[in-house]
Amino acid sequence: MGRVYLDHNATTPLHPEARDAMIAAMDVYGNPSSVHAEGRASKALIETARSKVAAALGADGADVIFVSSATEGAALFCSGRHLSGALVEHDAVGAWINADLPVDKTGRVHVDDPGSSVLQLANSETGIVQDIPEGLALSDMTQAFGKLPLSFNWTGVTAALVSAHKLGGPKGIGALVIRRGTDIGAQLRGGGQEMGRRAGTENVIGIAGFGAAAEAAARDLAAGAWARIEALRDKMEAAIAAQAPETVFTGQSVQRLPNTSCFATPGWKGETQVMQMDLSGFAISAGSACSSGKVRASKVLTAMGYGDDVATGAIRVSLGLETTEDDVMRFAENWLAKQKKFTARAA
Amino acid sequence: MGRVYLDHNATTPLHPEARDAMIAAMDVYGNPSSVHAEGRASKALIETARSKVAAALGADGADVIFVSSATEGAALFCSGRHLSGALVEHDAVGAWINADLPVDKTGRVHVDDPGSSVLQLANSETGIVQDIPEGLALSDMTQAFGKLPLSFNWTGVTAALVSAHKLGGPKGIGALVIRRGTDIGAQLRGGGQEMGRRAGTENVIGIAGFGAAAEAAARDLAAGAWARIEALRDKMEAAIAAQAPETVFTGQSVQRLPNTSCFATPGWKGETQVMQMDLSGFAISAGSACSSGKVRASKVLTAMGYGDDVATGAIRVSLGLETTEDDVMRFAENWLAKQKKFTARAA
Repeated sequence: MGRVYLDHNATTPLHPEARDAMIAAMDVYGNPSSVHAEGRASKALIETARSKVAAALGADGADVIFVSSATEGAALFCSGRHLSGALVEHDAVGAWINADLPVDKTGRVHVDDPGSSVLQLANSETGIVQDIPEGLALSDMTQAFGKLPLSFNWTGVTAALVSAHKLGGPKGIGALVIRRGTDIGAQLRGGGQEMGRRAGTENVIGIAGFGAAAEAAARDLAAGAWARIEALRDKMEAAIAAQAPETVFTGQSVQRLPNTSCFATPGWKGETQVMQMDLSGFAISAGSACSSGKVRASKVLTAMGYGDDVATGAIRVSLGLETTEDDVMRFAENWLAKQKKFTARAA
Repeated sequence: MGRVYLDHNATTPLHPEARDAMIAAMDVYGNPSSVHAEGRASKALIETARSKVAAALGADGADVIFVSSATEGAALFCSGRHLSGALVEHDAVGAWINADLPVDKTGRVHVDDPGSSVLQLANSETGIVQDIPEGLALSDMTQAFGKLPLSFNWTGVTAALVSAHKLGGPKGIGALVIRRGTDIGAQLRGGGQEMGRRAGTENVIGIAGFGAAAEAAARDLAAGAWARIEALRDKMEAAIAAQAPETVFTGQSVQRLPNTSCFATPGWKGETQVMQMDLSGFAISAGSACSSGKVRASKVLTAMGYGDDVATGAIRVSLGLETTEDDVMRFAENWLAKQKKFTARAA
């Protein structure tokens, strides 16, 4: 039997339409800054993709600045702004903020002053969704984009971060989306690309893939494709809870991403679970991929008030649109067998 | 007849091996930071490409840090270092330096203090090649990489900039290459990627394309492929000089890139020539692509002591490995016809 990939929040395979768009873009080779026909053809690919990302994100009229990752977008927007946020933010945002906003037991963050605060729309580890206050400075929409109905314009945020590879586009391309007129000083200089906000020859193939992936993701979302995934996620959690009632599930009492399940067996290290499941053919994670490899307590779960036994014993199972019932039930069965062995040894 | 692309210094089409490597990488979807098998497969692609780029650049033992462009590499290395350089540097470097190093009439730069200076290996507009002094802080090798035999290690520089799309790789990926042990503070933060120098999920597909392109470019270079191109370039220049002896060629008395020709008809604006030639089916440029669209004197030619009539009347014709004799001779014929009309009108 083939491997089962249940780590879609870390990254998800290329959507066939993104793949096709990238392969087509490989033949469009001009430099987008060149004024000749070859240059204009490349520029047109970029602008078409920009429109598609804006449309999928409900950001018509906003500036979509293509960057190499949401991490770059965070650095570009946050540097020098002294924003406040919570410990549940991704490290790419956390690196730039004062992490002084309180997180309650359900994972929700309380924002006092939206204009000087950042707040993720959905957490990568738990999937917990936040209410975005009007006038927020920045929202990291990386995990939510494509999985939840959302509109940049309706949320009323000044800026948002998104990334192609979380919704079926390639790695290495993302966007900082800002309300038109927002002041941003370029960190990459020496060229007029991206409306003067970001110099450097554009990743044309990656941008074309992002545009196609965003368009496809918006279509799948509108068609209700995630409802099936949410039902699978819930069925998997129910199967696990029935046989291992000591399992601690996070976020079940609040709105979560439809594809994400984060649960802990106190004392059984998440990293150990990841490695054992990998050997059995299942790809999952403990914490966000960006910090994986380090065995340590999840700062997201710690911020929610969980003790070290839960915060070090949690794993994340994240489903994709191609995930099947057989995938999740085989995962549950396999994981439960290992969990029983652990429990027996620990007893 | 099809169009003739003679703007390879702005960007050059994907090498078939780069294309194949990118398409193969599309199926390797794990996050390189993930510890499971899918993640390790992606990580392996990156490390293979890193070895290929290092080998092609003669940089074994150095740190190859993948960045989204040479422009990003310049910002990452130059920010806060207060380096000196000359006006002939690309704007991506020029944005960060004190442009106080003298340029002589042949385009050569005199460096006083290598340890605090930057110097390009070859100029993008004129192709003029510099002697790199031992101990130089930074060399922009973007235009030379793949076209000239070069070794990062032999040049004895602390750091170098290279870009995939100048040698047959995709746009949106480059590298900052540094001698091991050089202190670099990450500008993109929140993840341990690229040896802690550059956070953010890696552009795996682009990196795979860069590795394949660098390997192919080194092979073509070693096989002497550019000698044919240099002969074509020289033949084109001779044809133009014979019929339009008032043409001012730059760099003919010093070492140049084998593919680059920069020449001026005083008073005939470079941008006008680019547009006229584009309408006739030829893609060339005036100045570097990154600053094109702006009609202004080339600061490279101005730094060499040329007057405004030459600095605004220059065009760059840059050949690629697929360029044929028919391409360049058709270009020369077409350009000469337009040049005669201009001269007749101006008389």
